[in-house]
Amino acid sequence: MSEHARIARLRARSRSGADVGIGDDAAVLAKDERPQVLSCDVSVEGVHFRAEFADWRTLGRRAAVAALSDLAAMGAEPRAMLSSLILPRDFSEPDFDALVEGIAAAGDEVGAPVVGGNLARGEMVLIDTTVVGALETAPLLRSGARVGDGIYVAGFPGAAALGLHALLHAQPDAAPSFVDTWRTPRVDFDLARRVRAYATAAIDLSDGLVQDLTHLCEDSAVGASIDVAAIPRMDGFEQRTAELGADLRALLLHGGEAYTLLFTAPDSPDAVRIGTIEEVLGVRDADGRELLASGFDHFAEE
Amino acid sequence: MSEHARIARLRARSRSGADVGIGDDAAVLAKDERPQVLSCDVSVEGVHFRAEFADWRTLGRRAAVAALSDLAAMGAEPRAMLSSLILPRDFSEPDFDALVEGIAAAGDEVGAPVVGGNLARGEMVLIDTTVVGALETAPLLRSGARVGDGIYVAGFPGAAALGLHALLHAQPDAAPSFVDTWRTPRVDFDLARRVRAYATAAIDLSDGLVQDLTHLCEDSAVGASIDVAAIPRMDGFEQRTAELGADLRALLLHGGEAYTLLFTAPDSPDAVRIGTIEEVLGVRDADGRELLASGFDHFAEE
Repeated sequence: MSEHARIARLRARSRSGADVGIGDDAAVLAKDERPQVLSCDVSVEGVHFRAEFADWRTLGRRAAVAALSDLAAMGAEPRAMLSSLILPRDFSEPDFDALVEGIAAAGDEVGAPVVGGNLARGEMVLIDTTVVGALETAPLLRSGARVGDGIYVAGFPGAAALGLHALLHAQPDAAPSFVDTWRTPRVDFDLARRVRAYATAAIDLSDGLVQDLTHLCEDSAVGASIDVAAIPRMDGFEQRTAELGADLRALLLHGGEAYTLLFTAPDSPDAVRIGTIEEVLGVRDADGRELLASGFDHFAEE
Repeated sequence: MSEHARIARLRARSRSGADVGIGDDAAVLAKDERPQVLSCDVSVEGVHFRAEFADWRTLGRRAAVAALSDLAAMGAEPRAMLSSLILPRDFSEPDFDALVEGIAAAGDEVGAPVVGGNLARGEMVLIDTTVVGALETAPLLRSGARVGDGIYVAGFPGAAALGLHALLHAQPDAAPSFVDTWRTPRVDFDLARRVRAYATAAIDLSDGLVQDLTHLCEDSAVGASIDVAAIPRMDGFEQRTAELGADLRALLLHGGEAYTLLFTAPDSPDAVRIGTIEEVLGVRDADGRELLASGFDHFAEE
């Protein structure tokens, strides 16, 4: 299938969220008086995923969800996506269709159609998703946390990471519900809409709880203490972690790719409180031990 | 240098074009009542360029210019860019600084600051640039060409391709001004502003004259005849082409990466007329021979 035949298929799959969509030099979005929010997120085969971890529809959807997650963390309404794909020459037509379908499905779920994109050849699959959102309220930044705020998490930090651990060790059947959690993240924009009404700061959990909380604290010039025992755990988390020989504390504190919200607020009826914003800089556990970010860093020394 | 140290450098380099720039989950652009235009374009090491073809500042700037070119072809005003970078683990700090500086410089030249981005590790360098523009007039589409319109080109189709030919054959000194043309494309937004006032259709010359004109004709449901002898040639083009043993006609008709405007209009004081829009579908030369697109296709069989 030629590049232009593939673009024609992309165009056919694209929804009418744009005045001018895929096929011209650029997409045109209708006038919108709200401030616009932009972010991009990339998934690289061999770095962020392996082809054997899921079918291409699932991998495409997952890559787009990771990008959409940043809009939720900003308190923005999803509006549109652009999809830049690098594909090996031998990437098959059914795989291409599945990949595009998965990316488009992630957008359809939240009302953000794919309005543009780019295709090129490369050695491995790379999915770069640009997301466009609009703000109806002030943006929810990382920098607004105040001393005394509670620290809240939605979802289950460590659950997707346990699924990834099972996949990396070729034991997906040993933790199927956690593998599902890794494969099919979901961005909860309804939650984000409620939370933006009262939260002081937010970030999406992508690099691991301590890493992301450290970013939030640094940008807010505050510290944090968290109660590791209070971090919500999905059913069977301890058992599956033990069976797989994984490190429970490391999964909870450093496991990434949850794509759920971490936020600070005086109070919240929407998520689980796991700690408190403190004046003393740094992130500590309930025993006062400093927790250092050892989440995934693409450029860290190995 | 860690990922976050690199992001801090990106943030420092970012200009104040956004309410919230690099460093939070997403960038926030100020309210703008104009329709917004979005496009992305990717440059992959080994596919679109080789590291030895230029320094990293030049390669970064060039990748961003290729993306900005789509805004000019839509008749849009440049507003902002997002930069997604994939870098090998051993990519050096000075090279990173040069690459980022080049991308930012391309935006600074036209008033489109880098407001967001993404970094990840990969086997080769990949530069994906998302551009945001705004429309002050109706968008200049590929689909508006009318029978009888003149076909106009700005710049010199084939000049950048001759430079690339010299680079690919390790003879950059044999055609230095053409190598410069390949290395340092420039998007002429002043020209685009004039042209959008009267052009019926436009596309940027990226894949080669025949390929891009074919896109424009297909989208406009028209055909075209072009006079190959009328295609403007940069000083020394014939001589350098002959010295390098390149195919002059192929360079003019199929050489890509010019990043200049191809447009149709009843008349134009701003560019060189090379042909006429016809009713009969297809693109033909003055002798009536059909010209088939054989420009660069990322997924064509080799």
